[in-house]
Amino acid sequence: MDLLSIKDPSFLKNMNNAQLGQLSNEIRQFLIEKLSVTGGHIGPNLGVVELTVALHKEFNSPQDKIIWDVGHQSYVHKILTGRACEFDSLRKHNGLCGFPKRNESEHDVWETGHSSTSLSAAMGMAIARDLKKEKSFILPVIGDGALTGGMALEALNHIGHEKKDMIVILNDNEMSIAPNVGALHSVLGRLRTAGKYNWAKDELEYLLKKIPAVGGKLASTAERLKDSLKYLLVSGIFFEELGFTYLGPVDGHNYEELFENFRYAKKTKGPVLLHVITKKGKGYNPAETDKVGTWHGTGPYKIETGAFVKPLNEPPAWSKLVSETVRELAREDNRIVAITPAMPVGSKLEGFQSEFPDRMYDVGIAEQHATTVAAGLATQGMKPFLAIYSTFLQRAYDQMLHDVCRMNLNVFIAIDRAGLVGADGETHQGVFDIAFLRHMPNLVLMMPKDENEGQHMVNTALKYDEGPIAMRFPRGNGIGVPLDEEWKEIPIGSWEVLKEGTDAVILTFGTTIPLALKAASLLEKQDYSVKVVNARFIKPLDDKMLSSILDSKLPILTIEEAVLQGGFGSAVLEFAHDYGGPAATIERMGIPDEFIEHGSVDKLLEEIGLTVEGAMQRIINITPKKQKRA
Amino acid sequence: MDLLSIKDPSFLKNMNNAQLGQLSNEIRQFLIEKLSVTGGHIGPNLGVVELTVALHKEFNSPQDKIIWDVGHQSYVHKILTGRACEFDSLRKHNGLCGFPKRNESEHDVWETGHSSTSLSAAMGMAIARDLKKEKSFILPVIGDGALTGGMALEALNHIGHEKKDMIVILNDNEMSIAPNVGALHSVLGRLRTAGKYNWAKDELEYLLKKIPAVGGKLASTAERLKDSLKYLLVSGIFFEELGFTYLGPVDGHNYEELFENFRYAKKTKGPVLLHVITKKGKGYNPAETDKVGTWHGTGPYKIETGAFVKPLNEPPAWSKLVSETVRELAREDNRIVAITPAMPVGSKLEGFQSEFPDRMYDVGIAEQHATTVAAGLATQGMKPFLAIYSTFLQRAYDQMLHDVCRMNLNVFIAIDRAGLVGADGETHQGVFDIAFLRHMPNLVLMMPKDENEGQHMVNTALKYDEGPIAMRFPRGNGIGVPLDEEWKEIPIGSWEVLKEGTDAVILTFGTTIPLALKAASLLEKQDYSVKVVNARFIKPLDDKMLSSILDSKLPILTIEEAVLQGGFGSAVLEFAHDYGGPAATIERMGIPDEFIEHGSVDKLLEEIGLTVEGAMQRIINITPKKQKRA
Repeated sequence: MDLLSIKDPSFLKNMNNAQLGQLSNEIRQFLIEKLSVTGGHIGPNLGVVELTVALHKEFNSPQDKIIWDVGHQSYVHKILTGRACEFDSLRKHNGLCGFPKRNESEHDVWETGHSSTSLSAAMGMAIARDLKKEKSFILPVIGDGALTGGMALEALNHIGHEKKDMIVILNDNEMSIAPNVGALHSVLGRLRTAGKYNWAKDELEYLLKKIPAVGGKLASTAERLKDSLKYLLVSGIFFEELGFTYLGPVDGHNYEELFENFRYAKKTKGPVLLHVITKKGKGYNPAETDKVGTWHGTGPYKIETGAFVKPLNEPPAWSKLVSETVRELAREDNRIVAITPAMPVGSKLEGFQSEFPDRMYDVGIAEQHATTVAAGLATQGMKPFLAIYSTFLQRAYDQMLHDVCRMNLNVFIAIDRAGLVGADGETHQGVFDIAFLRHMPNLVLMMPKDENEGQHMVNTALKYDEGPIAMRFPRGNGIGVPLDEEWKEIPIGSWEVLKEGTDAVILTFGTTIPLALKAASLLEKQDYSVKVVNARFIKPLDDKMLSSILDSKLPILTIEEAVLQGGFGSAVLEFAHDYGGPAATIERMGIPDEFIEHGSVDKLLEEIGLTVEGAMQRIINITPKKQKRA
Repeated sequence: MDLLSIKDPSFLKNMNNAQLGQLSNEIRQFLIEKLSVTGGHIGPNLGVVELTVALHKEFNSPQDKIIWDVGHQSYVHKILTGRACEFDSLRKHNGLCGFPKRNESEHDVWETGHSSTSLSAAMGMAIARDLKKEKSFILPVIGDGALTGGMALEALNHIGHEKKDMIVILNDNEMSIAPNVGALHSVLGRLRTAGKYNWAKDELEYLLKKIPAVGGKLASTAERLKDSLKYLLVSGIFFEELGFTYLGPVDGHNYEELFENFRYAKKTKGPVLLHVITKKGKGYNPAETDKVGTWHGTGPYKIETGAFVKPLNEPPAWSKLVSETVRELAREDNRIVAITPAMPVGSKLEGFQSEFPDRMYDVGIAEQHATTVAAGLATQGMKPFLAIYSTFLQRAYDQMLHDVCRMNLNVFIAIDRAGLVGADGETHQGVFDIAFLRHMPNLVLMMPKDENEGQHMVNTALKYDEGPIAMRFPRGNGIGVPLDEEWKEIPIGSWEVLKEGTDAVILTFGTTIPLALKAASLLEKQDYSVKVVNARFIKPLDDKMLSSILDSKLPILTIEEAVLQGGFGSAVLEFAHDYGGPAATIERMGIPDEFIEHGSVDKLLEEIGLTVEGAMQRIINITPKKQKRA
């Protein structure tokens, strides 16, 4: 059929399984073709084609609420709810979002990006439904990886306790982004291999009747054995202990099995956990045979060969630079231990892992635990290297504050994907870290101007033994500068003058340094002499240099690819006012007080005015004209 | 024996169980007497007397690491490690901390205050121990309530997976602060009533031998039944599924049972979960018979009667004002649903709960889940009232940002215990919320000047339907103003001039308003005319009033009982500079960039200079003298 003509999922109601099978093939072809051009989360979406189709056939969205955990597996859902025609703009500026968006469709009842929120959202929706005396099915779809997130476990505990009607679809593809971690994973593994749960019950009933009647303790044991039937054998007991009715495992690519179990689940009171086994990348060989997560999210690729046209997940040189520098240092310093919350590939830790398998811990999607494990290590004189994305560090705010910073522990926090990340959009932009870290006592926070300074900063961080130290660095690659052979230690709190100037000063760091230098150079031609400072320490500031700049009474422009509220610019304002009040203008450029949607980083920067032209205009505005033109 | 003479726990090694029993009595008497004067966490500590003594006798602290989750149950540990003589200063300024402190003793290997961190810390310490090839036992002691916190569950999952040697002591007292919540609680309940685990195995072995040999499927079932012995009956299967060896339940007040199980645990490879049943308040009748949590933490009391001298947990009028106002509004507005993360008593929700039992959810110690449940409710047109302490909202930073604010959902976040909280100290000071919330787009953040404005603000928040709105309010009681009979709605973003003045302006809100008014009034006598503004909206600011103040070119002093970095004062600086640069001095008073320890709030404010005198001096400093004296 013509997928572009789909307006809503109602057409599915009259299709038989054979027709659905045909539709699945068409959807797969569509995804493989479209994503070969735009890139996107191909693996997860190929894995949930039948599951999504079956959900939309058996249930009635949006009255019934399908809640996609993480949300990057919602492409099939988008096709079935009338958005196939927008796939050419997937993840592009003003185009179709790669995650569910409430303003795109009434079928997107919940927005996500970060993992493990679906069960809590489902609980809220179930409470609302019951209070409003409405009838509807609540259907969170959560992966086996997301289930290791603490908030999902908090939710399981609460849902099992409250016994609200809902059908939790556990989409078990045996790996989330990287191969999955944790004891829960083993539980699922046992379930997968154990086959169907229910058949055993009947047999046991029969078996128990054969147990000879014996007196006293044994009889009572037999009695309890009977009462405990549901606890027997390898079963969904883990979830049943938590108050769920466990169904499964079900082949997530088999319509008959899916419908049979959906119907059974619909009739079941209280919370159901339906364990569905799917295959990531199903139907596209390069993705289906991927063992490490390369095909989780990709850039454009050649359909025939599976070769990446230009790897959109191109070698994230920054991640690699950091992890490889740590690896080299770890050869000399056996205190160094790497911790990742389920991002060994994204953080490019494969090299570290293979060289130091017992000094690297992937703790699963569990940022809180990751951070406090690092704190625990530090109390014992170790030097933990916590590799974490800026946006996911948000999950560990309290652990950073209450555990790491409050106890002033020697943890090196390597904050990856800091700043705008582009196509993943507003749930993933790493623009809040400065504002949420800057007020944490004891913390050193820095950002390098290029990959060469980056390696010196990693060295600095791992040599620093006076408390927590964080280095933020952007998504993607360095700018191509040569790397020094010998590492230096950069004095904590020291800035660097990149260009002298006598009319105005730009204070900036990291990704916006090239922008500032370009603006300064172009302004030079207009006869403005602008000083540019690499303010590489966001905390502590370079008090001495900043004081002297304030003494010079030159106007100051701060530039940061981060939120303005409470950010680096505000730190400069705070310092200036504590210092005695600024004698000249101080202005701030950065990210305004709104969420920044998806699109290329360049487009986004342009939209918010974080450009060379923007910086030039601001400098011209704040530089006293008369003085200048005299 | 003389508890004051204890230097370290070594004296325990030669004591027999009878002597230990005598010691326990002496410790209980000591705690009951000392805390009757100072107040403190009496219930939890009376519950762990034998457990703590037994741990210190059987293990060798600090080589073996006892990690107290939450930490308020560490008083007995403090006595046994040489700090009995400091109990007169418990929780007082510069006195003994109510929680473990690394700088107090080498036996305090981990600091806490917030719940559920001990397992992650233990994991970090276990990794370090093994890498350093040291031998030691790692002993996290965690309550049944703390186990519902997501990060503890993340840690269970990871520890079970890694199979590190550690002995997790589950201190199950059937209630944490309030009676416990959740499916895990039911699991523990079943274990408690099931008695010993191990005896059943032997019987079953015998029983299974009696099963007649039958062919085919049945035989294989019997075979699997045998293999699955450990999964049988009501057992510690939940924890065993997660990879732990489950031991217990053990009577936590019986030395013989404790030692027997400790010794067994010591010989067991991999992680052990030892389930210990204790009785909160054991040995002091008023605390032992407490069913709601009154004796969890108290002020001074009369030993004979259990009457509170002056309830230190005195009616927290602020919590009550808020919850009762919400309750009244809930009669008219059936969208309102209350959510608490395990603080129904602290947040004074008993009245709401009894009137609207189906509109109030205690989700357990699970701030992340609580916040996203509220978000889920809001997506369905409900009006959730999230009652949460400032310090615990830190745990839900990402849920506030990624779920509530990003989707711009109508959630009312009532932030209790905002500002300094006093005796609980640095882990509990509610001084970071402004800095971590102010950069969240879409959020309204306010603080009332007194309880009358407080009730109007609650009304305002519940009538506001344009997104998330938060009201912070302090620990303790209002200031005693009369309450209006009719509720008003306060225009969002509107400040209020409390006192006119022509020389300088103080911008402040909440608890520091009386200080500002007093300073202004005293300055009046020195011929300074100071305007005082109730800046009750921290976000958005009152742009109009602030612009006009800036236009007036008067010097400005901002005062806040919150951290200065990125706080309210910084918001004023940001606005002033965006507005065109301040024409006069702007200075900020607030909490400096350090963690504030325990002590009375007044003492702490004095120490950091947040005083009437401090404010007066700052105003005098920034007010131009010549102009003034002219």
